[in-house]
Amino acid sequence: MSSTSSLVNSTRADHPGGRETVINLDHGDPTIYERFWRQVGDKTTIIIPGWQSLSYFSDGSNICWFLETEFAREVVRLHKVVGNAVTEGRHIVVGTGSSQLILAALYALSSPDAAEPISVVSAAPYYSSYPSMADYQKSGLYKWAGDAENFDKEGPYIELVTSPNNPDGHRRKAMVNRSQGQFIHDLAYYWPQYTPISSPSDHDLTLFTVSKTTGHAGMRIGWAIVKDKEVAKKMTKFIEISTIGVSKDSQLRAAKVLKAVSDSCEQENSQDGESFFTHSYNIMAQRWKQLRAVVEAGDLFTLPQFSPAFCTFFGQETEPQPAFIWLKCEGDIEDCESLLREHKIVARSGRHFGASPKYVRISMLDTDETFIQLIDRLSAIQQGK
Amino acid sequence: MSSTSSLVNSTRADHPGGRETVINLDHGDPTIYERFWRQVGDKTTIIIPGWQSLSYFSDGSNICWFLETEFAREVVRLHKVVGNAVTEGRHIVVGTGSSQLILAALYALSSPDAAEPISVVSAAPYYSSYPSMADYQKSGLYKWAGDAENFDKEGPYIELVTSPNNPDGHRRKAMVNRSQGQFIHDLAYYWPQYTPISSPSDHDLTLFTVSKTTGHAGMRIGWAIVKDKEVAKKMTKFIEISTIGVSKDSQLRAAKVLKAVSDSCEQENSQDGESFFTHSYNIMAQRWKQLRAVVEAGDLFTLPQFSPAFCTFFGQETEPQPAFIWLKCEGDIEDCESLLREHKIVARSGRHFGASPKYVRISMLDTDETFIQLIDRLSAIQQGK
Repeated sequence: MSSTSSLVNSTRADHPGGRETVINLDHGDPTIYERFWRQVGDKTTIIIPGWQSLSYFSDGSNICWFLETEFAREVVRLHKVVGNAVTEGRHIVVGTGSSQLILAALYALSSPDAAEPISVVSAAPYYSSYPSMADYQKSGLYKWAGDAENFDKEGPYIELVTSPNNPDGHRRKAMVNRSQGQFIHDLAYYWPQYTPISSPSDHDLTLFTVSKTTGHAGMRIGWAIVKDKEVAKKMTKFIEISTIGVSKDSQLRAAKVLKAVSDSCEQENSQDGESFFTHSYNIMAQRWKQLRAVVEAGDLFTLPQFSPAFCTFFGQETEPQPAFIWLKCEGDIEDCESLLREHKIVARSGRHFGASPKYVRISMLDTDETFIQLIDRLSAIQQGK
Repeated sequence: MSSTSSLVNSTRADHPGGRETVINLDHGDPTIYERFWRQVGDKTTIIIPGWQSLSYFSDGSNICWFLETEFAREVVRLHKVVGNAVTEGRHIVVGTGSSQLILAALYALSSPDAAEPISVVSAAPYYSSYPSMADYQKSGLYKWAGDAENFDKEGPYIELVTSPNNPDGHRRKAMVNRSQGQFIHDLAYYWPQYTPISSPSDHDLTLFTVSKTTGHAGMRIGWAIVKDKEVAKKMTKFIEISTIGVSKDSQLRAAKVLKAVSDSCEQENSQDGESFFTHSYNIMAQRWKQLRAVVEAGDLFTLPQFSPAFCTFFGQETEPQPAFIWLKCEGDIEDCESLLREHKIVARSGRHFGASPKYVRISMLDTDETFIQLIDRLSAIQQGK
């Protein structure tokens, strides 16, 4: 049932060049950015001596006592540079990836004294891990209640708003608008390479993650921007009980990487090098162009349609170019996942996202080699090969 | 209620030298080892370039797909060098500290189809975080059922066996011995500096943590040694859903630190330097000697009594020298925590451990400066100052 189960058996192909090799694009492993980080060279190399970071504590005076000051500073700076989130007067809570922060937010927004678990909803197609994240512990605090569009229960609820949305890349607003709603805005993909930045986001509880921002998924570092002090405290408490804080090594490394991103943006005009976002926007643009070309050459598949919009970061109109392809099989094909699997492409069925199996989600963030193979195979399928 | 709440407000004293400064020994922040790691110098310095560890995956062929091979190798090697755990034919699961592994183990040993949550017990005095860890999510899978000694419910249960025990330092075996019991052996302190190593531990599910082994609490790295493949799979699944793996940076750093520990043991006889365990055993021995001297000089306080035993690692009889003082106030004093607080010592009341408030737990792993202040203040209390 849980779509994340597929993670266990998935690994990048050892020989991605081989025609017979299965390419696994089920998950969004962001190896696309490796080339940029290699080019950057030593600037983001971190050196940690053996006697550093022994203590559990980072800053005992902060609500989030395990938050490294340097990391928090670079988060605030990057949001200012990019213009995608208001941080003034907000609390930053660091997490072991944004997954931990989603759970921490569910914990913080629910009440231990409630008569029944609070309903957790998200509009379909929703991120495939939300149902299992809400239900795996059989928590009495919160409970998955499915597609926000069909939600009609009275009383308090939590809505997960993912924008741009995973899997389909569309911009989203809250779907259920009732007085007792609380919201978790998952803005993992609200960065200029994926979508036009329209204005700084300004919600009660907003999540970001290094994985999708810079591609450093192995760090397991995410952050929450939280308006309410008590919510920040409860989220911190959750992380304290579940993992007694978050890796200091990865926070320090993330600080260095985010700093390099901000530096690259600020120095772009005065130096030769591209900024991280110019680099990544261009790769994504190239990939989406190749993808649209191959899909539009046949009538088997269709892609979501997006409108360009003004991006305040680039100072010009840009195209949405999502981190995932939300591919639809047209005509008689009812199970798109199986069709792709026959052609050695592993993708995640629409079923896991509360949608039809005519859809699949395919990662756009893998290596160049794998992406080229994907294009070749999609083309071959269309040509009936 | 939750004893971990105190973590939020606790921080190492900014001016530990001042007479007026509160010394916070509520938690077991293992800064005692900083001196050793400074002496070691560059050997444990890690350098991570910006393009490393982008992927979520470490080893897709391993059950625990986010386990770094190098870390696993050094874990196995260290257990061989120290002789404190059997690892042959077992599965290693890495966690964000052993806290995450305790939760993963509760998840793995419980059944989603059970009519009611499985009981979780531990013999008092038990680790103060166990009750909140079992209950904070109001899970329908497992539920805290208190002191193992008073547990008389029929049916399946999970017993947490902490040996040497936190808070009191005693060696422990399972308390409830019934057919439907499952066990989590938390052996965080089963290392030569804290207790004689009698034989390699050989349980179904055993937990260790870098925090207590080498003092690197800020890394948030723990590991489980698991006999049953299905249990290892379920634990991995838990960590996948809750944090999509464990920081690669910290795993790589932990590998380097564990390697330095094993190297220091193997080279001790051929070189000048002390091994990590000789060094840490000697500091702990000195501290316990000072502590016993000051406590035995009065009749206000008492300490647990331990018997020396043969340690296979040191090849001689050694004394247990726990990471915590389990201090008892004798006579009329009913609230030992308050007494110490009046003298600017923050310690954790016995109440949090399912024991009498006549007891407190005090960390033995803080800096030399703080430890000396502790000794001075305990002495002053005894002298009625």
